[in-house]
Amino acid sequence: MSGEATVTMPNSDYNPAVHANLSNGVGFIEGEIVPISEAKIPILDWGFLHSDATYDVVHVWNNRFFRIEDHLDRFMNSMEKLNMAIDFDRGQIREILARCVKASGLKDAYVEMICTRGVPAANSRDPRRCKNRFYAFVVPFSWVATRQDQDRGVRLHISSVQRIAPQSVDPTIKNYHWLDLVRGQYDAYAEGADLAVLSDMHGNVVEGAGFNIFAVTGKTVVTPSKGVLKGITRKTAMELSEQIGLEVHERDVPAAELLSADEVFITSTAGGIMPIKFVNEQLIGNGLAENTVRLRELYWEAHQDPVLSQPV
Amino acid sequence: MSGEATVTMPNSDYNPAVHANLSNGVGFIEGEIVPISEAKIPILDWGFLHSDATYDVVHVWNNRFFRIEDHLDRFMNSMEKLNMAIDFDRGQIREILARCVKASGLKDAYVEMICTRGVPAANSRDPRRCKNRFYAFVVPFSWVATRQDQDRGVRLHISSVQRIAPQSVDPTIKNYHWLDLVRGQYDAYAEGADLAVLSDMHGNVVEGAGFNIFAVTGKTVVTPSKGVLKGITRKTAMELSEQIGLEVHERDVPAAELLSADEVFITSTAGGIMPIKFVNEQLIGNGLAENTVRLRELYWEAHQDPVLSQPV
Repeated sequence: MSGEATVTMPNSDYNPAVHANLSNGVGFIEGEIVPISEAKIPILDWGFLHSDATYDVVHVWNNRFFRIEDHLDRFMNSMEKLNMAIDFDRGQIREILARCVKASGLKDAYVEMICTRGVPAANSRDPRRCKNRFYAFVVPFSWVATRQDQDRGVRLHISSVQRIAPQSVDPTIKNYHWLDLVRGQYDAYAEGADLAVLSDMHGNVVEGAGFNIFAVTGKTVVTPSKGVLKGITRKTAMELSEQIGLEVHERDVPAAELLSADEVFITSTAGGIMPIKFVNEQLIGNGLAENTVRLRELYWEAHQDPVLSQPV
Repeated sequence: MSGEATVTMPNSDYNPAVHANLSNGVGFIEGEIVPISEAKIPILDWGFLHSDATYDVVHVWNNRFFRIEDHLDRFMNSMEKLNMAIDFDRGQIREILARCVKASGLKDAYVEMICTRGVPAANSRDPRRCKNRFYAFVVPFSWVATRQDQDRGVRLHISSVQRIAPQSVDPTIKNYHWLDLVRGQYDAYAEGADLAVLSDMHGNVVEGAGFNIFAVTGKTVVTPSKGVLKGITRKTAMELSEQIGLEVHERDVPAAELLSADEVFITSTAGGIMPIKFVNEQLIGNGLAENTVRLRELYWEAHQDPVLSQPV
């Protein structure tokens, strides 16, 4: 796991002027920073052919990483749980991500680090024989729901598609198994909604495509405890909720509880804390989402907090 | 879905001499046949980042495709179920695959066709806005268990990992969601076994990493009916079983039934019909697997049948 002398670190003198559209993003492939349009992975990598991969996404806002140590913690844990190891250590990963962001010139960015099983040995079907690979990319910051979407009012559909169960894939390992989430999204579009939240086999809501979910009723905030990624923005939302005097519970959340809640919001690195105005076409509470709006303000203020954010 | 005039078909005059290792395989990427070592896909393709993709694998044996029309049927159906469409029609896909095999010079080959969601529009998280992509590759034929493995005796481990449920991902859409299968494989290795078969939530066996499973007891053959890919080799094994006077049932197969069976075998395009000698370290039946051995003979003989196989 530790960085050997053979590790090639990206060149920090990479010259953006050479490439026209570097602000579209960059990739880190085989030890080099390249424009995102040239960032490619081998078709034989089992990270693609078996979705045998883990990843994490940290964001940069106003030239500062937000909670990068939490994301690195989770990424290192995910790799270990999948029996993966790479040539870069934690400090080198942090450094690579920073160099990629600098090369892109982006002030607000979506920064993804990836570890794949790698390309199998000839005629081998044994994952233990693969050399695991590290990739990364940086693209402009993106939103599950933009601020405009939020102001207009985001419509959530409770999908009957069941999220892949923890008995099959450990959801605390951030992974690319999204076919259920994509199917949920298509169902949501068919219902005139923007986003889908999936359920577990008992009819509790769990998570959506890249986001966790919360319901606020009175002074109580609930969020699903099982079958979900332990999101870093989820964690931030829980901390901020306690800060403003709300009581937070991680437990099963039946679908019906969303409909009767005063407020519903979602959390994601891609957009932070985002209010949901309609669930299954029903207006939630009085539609003002006062606690959520307060949490959203605090979330963006926290991006100046030197404990939670650091300059790239 | 139909082939427009803009479709670039691969050049059949591709010169293998230009590249040293073309017999390692070739890829079909953005309309061109390239050596497999140069076959790469964009890191941003949601086929990778969301495993939002479907695929199929047909094999070539002694310069003949085996059941290619069955594989094309399934591939076309899988794309439709995922709301995907590509610029190539069925005839063009067949032609591309043949040209790739010819370019590789391989007589026995593993031929994979892939459709991915594609690269998202800038700042979009909407899969409907993606242009779906078609890729293919050809590599030397590979085996879930080689003939040597089979002669030595393949050891199967019944895993407690649950295969991703049909309520989450439709298993009849051939897909890359393999993290459960990979975890099963690691458990199998830890138990000294070669392969893992996963279970459903009720304790029935379902499928393993790229294979279906069968048990033979007396004159009866059973194979799981639900939660599995409807394999083409599975179909062939069922047809051949009836041909030799066995009665075939598709139904739930409790794990215990494997242990008490006279014979257990697995089926895959990667290796055909392959006997299993040990399940959870227990010898199955008398270890001779006489029906399975007969089915395996018939399976390879069928590769000369002009109804089932055609020259590349």
